[in-house]
Amino acid sequence: MNYHELVYAIESRQSVLCVGLDSDVQKLPAGFAPTPESLFGFNKAIIDATADFAVAYKPNLAFYEAYGLAGWKALEQTIGYLRAQYPGHLTIADAKRGDIGNTASRYAQGLLQELGFDAITVAPYMGKDSVVPFLLPDKWTVVLALTSNPGADDFQQQRLADGRPLYAQVIEKVASWIPVEQRMFVVGATQPEGLKSVRGLAPDTYFLVPGVGAQGGNVQDVLSAAGWTDRPGVGILINASRSIQYASSGSDFAESARLEAEKMQREMALWMQSNRAWTDAEASGNEQLPA
Amino acid sequence: MNYHELVYAIESRQSVLCVGLDSDVQKLPAGFAPTPESLFGFNKAIIDATADFAVAYKPNLAFYEAYGLAGWKALEQTIGYLRAQYPGHLTIADAKRGDIGNTASRYAQGLLQELGFDAITVAPYMGKDSVVPFLLPDKWTVVLALTSNPGADDFQQQRLADGRPLYAQVIEKVASWIPVEQRMFVVGATQPEGLKSVRGLAPDTYFLVPGVGAQGGNVQDVLSAAGWTDRPGVGILINASRSIQYASSGSDFAESARLEAEKMQREMALWMQSNRAWTDAEASGNEQLPA
Repeated sequence: MNYHELVYAIESRQSVLCVGLDSDVQKLPAGFAPTPESLFGFNKAIIDATADFAVAYKPNLAFYEAYGLAGWKALEQTIGYLRAQYPGHLTIADAKRGDIGNTASRYAQGLLQELGFDAITVAPYMGKDSVVPFLLPDKWTVVLALTSNPGADDFQQQRLADGRPLYAQVIEKVASWIPVEQRMFVVGATQPEGLKSVRGLAPDTYFLVPGVGAQGGNVQDVLSAAGWTDRPGVGILINASRSIQYASSGSDFAESARLEAEKMQREMALWMQSNRAWTDAEASGNEQLPA
Repeated sequence: MNYHELVYAIESRQSVLCVGLDSDVQKLPAGFAPTPESLFGFNKAIIDATADFAVAYKPNLAFYEAYGLAGWKALEQTIGYLRAQYPGHLTIADAKRGDIGNTASRYAQGLLQELGFDAITVAPYMGKDSVVPFLLPDKWTVVLALTSNPGADDFQQQRLADGRPLYAQVIEKVASWIPVEQRMFVVGATQPEGLKSVRGLAPDTYFLVPGVGAQGGNVQDVLSAAGWTDRPGVGILINASRSIQYASSGSDFAESARLEAEKMQREMALWMQSNRAWTDAEASGNEQLPA
């Protein structure tokens, strides 16, 4: 899915919701056996229930690798189902991979080409040759910039000799390696001042924002801190995982997930309708609208 | 495999050789079909040929993930074979994982517990809560510090406000999170001055050193730069992948791999015999010798 297709998905669905598929064998709702073989059925139900309100799906690979072959099979089934049934939704492999060029190319081959994800999350510590192998046609490289976990203070927030925090240099360098229409930054939702700071450093780049819902951030704060008001596409994907997937542990889990996704989408639509200045006619002339 | 067992393996085999199992479907020698189903057979032959001269094996997971389920099956077969046949060799999952605590625990579950690797490589960018979940009994956390790829200059070598490079802070903080007998640092071989610098910062910590062989570093330089001379165990594992795995593309590939591993082991044994000061009697009284 390319840049214009993502903008189109966001504007047509009035949503920037990314549903995280961090599916946990121990938390499956009533009716599912607590085994890795149940993961795909659960994912399918969550996807079908939320697709009207979401623009992206993001399985975190750790939840699948935890179960070895059975977990990988569930991951393959899930991405296969998404590609076949929901080609208008962005698919993100939350893998946080990072290795030297030769090796990074293998991760790109496996996750972007074989499995066919549209995007992959990447860790920047090893530098340019660990990031650029993910730059493939119509694929997105989603680089960790400023995350929302406590450990973000340990290195990301450390000041460099020039006074800037490390994450600012990550943003600057990655922006020189990956074209704007194929890059995103992971920026945590629990630090609105961080979101504003990163938006200042990367005004034209999409953010993938985890940490909304169960982790404490909220939709309005995120959009107000970093959403684009001057052009279509919003510039943000907001991820929610647990608050949607585990909205209910009963047999109504899918309906509860749907209601939670719809609630978030309504907040997003409300913000989009209230905080943006252009008219449809103006937007139609904007080069960043889908063709 | 715990600290004392690793020291015992190194001293009894007079070797610090780690054989990288970066097995490439496109580079399999004569006699193997170029399919992921051949990977385990190739790995088994390489392992059997080199086990007398090696103390560790390190599959890089990217080479397996590249082939999806078939690749993961080869990885499971490989670690299963190592655990069953070579329990006196350290097994390292070269995964370079890094995610928030909740999620990192899943990677630990999958790779250290389900598959049973002794060690895993970890990327530090997300900080403490992305590193400590890998601290499990008798398991090793192998953290990227200063790598040997060109991209190491982009962030790892950047000076912080206090004048130290980022990698120095990674080393200091990780050392405060993970006990010395369960941590290692990845330090590239192609920068002997980097090896010396890191040894100064982490005098008591094991290093995993890639970049020897095909990538240009050599055994003597690595050991002279950072090997322990004052106690058993050397304090280093030197990894070689391509130079051993692809020593020959013919039907003599296993014998060629064995000869290459033996050549490296002899260099290691020579250094160990020439550069260390204690007598066996003194070493026997050293608390760091195996019980």
